[in-house]
Amino acid sequence: MEFTYYMPTKIFCGRDCIAKHADALRTLGTHALIVTGKSSAKNGALADVCAALEQNGQGFTLFDRVTPNPTVGCVREGIALLESAGADFVVAIGGGSPMDAAKAIATLCVQPRTDEEIFAGGYRAEALPMAHVPTTAGTGSEVTPYSILTNDKGQTKTSITSPAMFPVYAFLDGKYMNGLSRATTVNTAMDALSHAVEGMLSRNATPISDALACESMRILYPLLPKAHAETLTADDRDALLYASALAGMTIAQSGTTAVHGMGYALTYFHHIDHGRANGLLLGEMLRLCEEKGLPQVKKIVSACGCGSVENFCSCLAELIGEKEEIPRETLVGYAAHAMQNKNIKKSAYEPTQAEAERLYLRSFGYGV
Amino acid sequence: MEFTYYMPTKIFCGRDCIAKHADALRTLGTHALIVTGKSSAKNGALADVCAALEQNGQGFTLFDRVTPNPTVGCVREGIALLESAGADFVVAIGGGSPMDAAKAIATLCVQPRTDEEIFAGGYRAEALPMAHVPTTAGTGSEVTPYSILTNDKGQTKTSITSPAMFPVYAFLDGKYMNGLSRATTVNTAMDALSHAVEGMLSRNATPISDALACESMRILYPLLPKAHAETLTADDRDALLYASALAGMTIAQSGTTAVHGMGYALTYFHHIDHGRANGLLLGEMLRLCEEKGLPQVKKIVSACGCGSVENFCSCLAELIGEKEEIPRETLVGYAAHAMQNKNIKKSAYEPTQAEAERLYLRSFGYGV
Repeated sequence: MEFTYYMPTKIFCGRDCIAKHADALRTLGTHALIVTGKSSAKNGALADVCAALEQNGQGFTLFDRVTPNPTVGCVREGIALLESAGADFVVAIGGGSPMDAAKAIATLCVQPRTDEEIFAGGYRAEALPMAHVPTTAGTGSEVTPYSILTNDKGQTKTSITSPAMFPVYAFLDGKYMNGLSRATTVNTAMDALSHAVEGMLSRNATPISDALACESMRILYPLLPKAHAETLTADDRDALLYASALAGMTIAQSGTTAVHGMGYALTYFHHIDHGRANGLLLGEMLRLCEEKGLPQVKKIVSACGCGSVENFCSCLAELIGEKEEIPRETLVGYAAHAMQNKNIKKSAYEPTQAEAERLYLRSFGYGV
Repeated sequence: MEFTYYMPTKIFCGRDCIAKHADALRTLGTHALIVTGKSSAKNGALADVCAALEQNGQGFTLFDRVTPNPTVGCVREGIALLESAGADFVVAIGGGSPMDAAKAIATLCVQPRTDEEIFAGGYRAEALPMAHVPTTAGTGSEVTPYSILTNDKGQTKTSITSPAMFPVYAFLDGKYMNGLSRATTVNTAMDALSHAVEGMLSRNATPISDALACESMRILYPLLPKAHAETLTADDRDALLYASALAGMTIAQSGTTAVHGMGYALTYFHHIDHGRANGLLLGEMLRLCEEKGLPQVKKIVSACGCGSVENFCSCLAELIGEKEEIPRETLVGYAAHAMQNKNIKKSAYEPTQAEAERLYLRSFGYGV
């Protein structure tokens, strides 16, 4: 038994947790850069954050120009605004994109890098302090030390990481998710499921990350059909958000693996939503791991309570519905591309290029 | 679903983890006060810590005068040595007593208090940074923000707490436990079990603390007969230590409850080992909670895999063996005394004084 565990973020969970724990924000600084997307914060979260900051006498500047799959350009724009506003801490509101952009802004403003160096790693444990408010239940970014950005040079998405990217606070309030569309709810839930499953299938899995992943799957999996049928109650939304945070705590230890590594091409080249991209590939990856005799597969099936890998795949197929049409030769090209991805190497079973090809093809309905 | 989660300690777990992660200690300061007991560190832990500090070019001063159930006097002695040595961080090696003393030393040296004020609460989040090396598998103190000291005025043991008392690092290496006596192994294991069970039975239990508690019980409970029979393997020792840390992470969220609150009198007045004191009372407390219909009891029985509360009680009785003889009227007096204890009020079912009397009496074999 050999592992390291670290997850220093303080989590406040529950209805109106921002208002109830507004005081905590005082410790972060005097002026916040609020990082969000155009629509991410239109669910009450921005109003709650502003009210808390005002109550504390803290100033703030709004940066609401984060787009899905944030670019380095977007991060630089945020840093410029942060600096001109004299902000000394960051509040992120949104799904993964605003949270990931916020982490990069908070880190790169104190550890400047050229575009060429951004993905070169070696970040010190130094960043402006952050509070994160997820408004989707999927990314788990509020409890991880990763920021995933669009990497145009590599034609993929790439993570940067630093222990200082763990937010100081995460505020989990399911009420911000009540107005989410069916598509966003389902896609982000598939992202969370993928984190839990990939965490189990990681070379870097630990006993604690496995325990967190299993707890996440136990809660999350039975809610998927309700997400699909749009019958989630407010309590279900809370549970989904909690399960997503558990899955985030999982990958904070284990990292993600082949599914994320292969999904990035689908997002980069086809603008397929990140969670959906993972959902498209996850079933076939689990099949491959079962074929290879990985003992984790039984534990995943047991935690999900789904009985078999086949049932797991059927459930995902139901959620995904009609698949995007991507030519066979294009998918084959992605397999070569994905082999360069560092996440693939973290898989407990590392697919060969031929297996990655089959995985892409089967995931899109091609016979192989 | 409303809760707060916070456990910022970085855990290094595994064989020779101090040597492997010696570098981490560099971040703590230039000169360590090593806090330990006369015998606590005679298992290789002290040598490993000294080697790591020497390798880092860090100085250290040894304070090895911590006795079981540390007193305020012992803490003051440690602070005096720390100050004269100019130490700027603390390394604790031992069971709960050295760890708890170390936490109080690291906190009180920057937040001085008179003897009268020590147990008055209100500590700020400020302490010297610490690394903790448990040498028993029971207290979980390496991952909690509590220091439990002998409170002579209150004739009990009382906790002081501050978020800054979470150690920066915890090093979990089961090899330090290989030479432990049967009595210490069993008593400390009962302490860990009590943390997990009491965590579930706390008013302040959270979904995360419950998940950690159940995982702890799943690992710990089946090892109890092996601890009793002295047939623990090195792997079992590692697993016990891990389960103890999980139970510590549990009470870091939930606190302890009536069993600890009532056990302190047994330790204060009769010098009954802390873990054993909990083990003596735990079965009857679980019986009371079952009687009161607490739904947590089923989850505890299920996580332990013991089938029933009766079996749970039999297992503990086996571990405890012959019980101390304490007069009936003395135990009755402890019930009145225990009602003042703040831990009792944290119990999901708070025993009345009459119930606390019955609990003490039945635990020591009196018919009531």
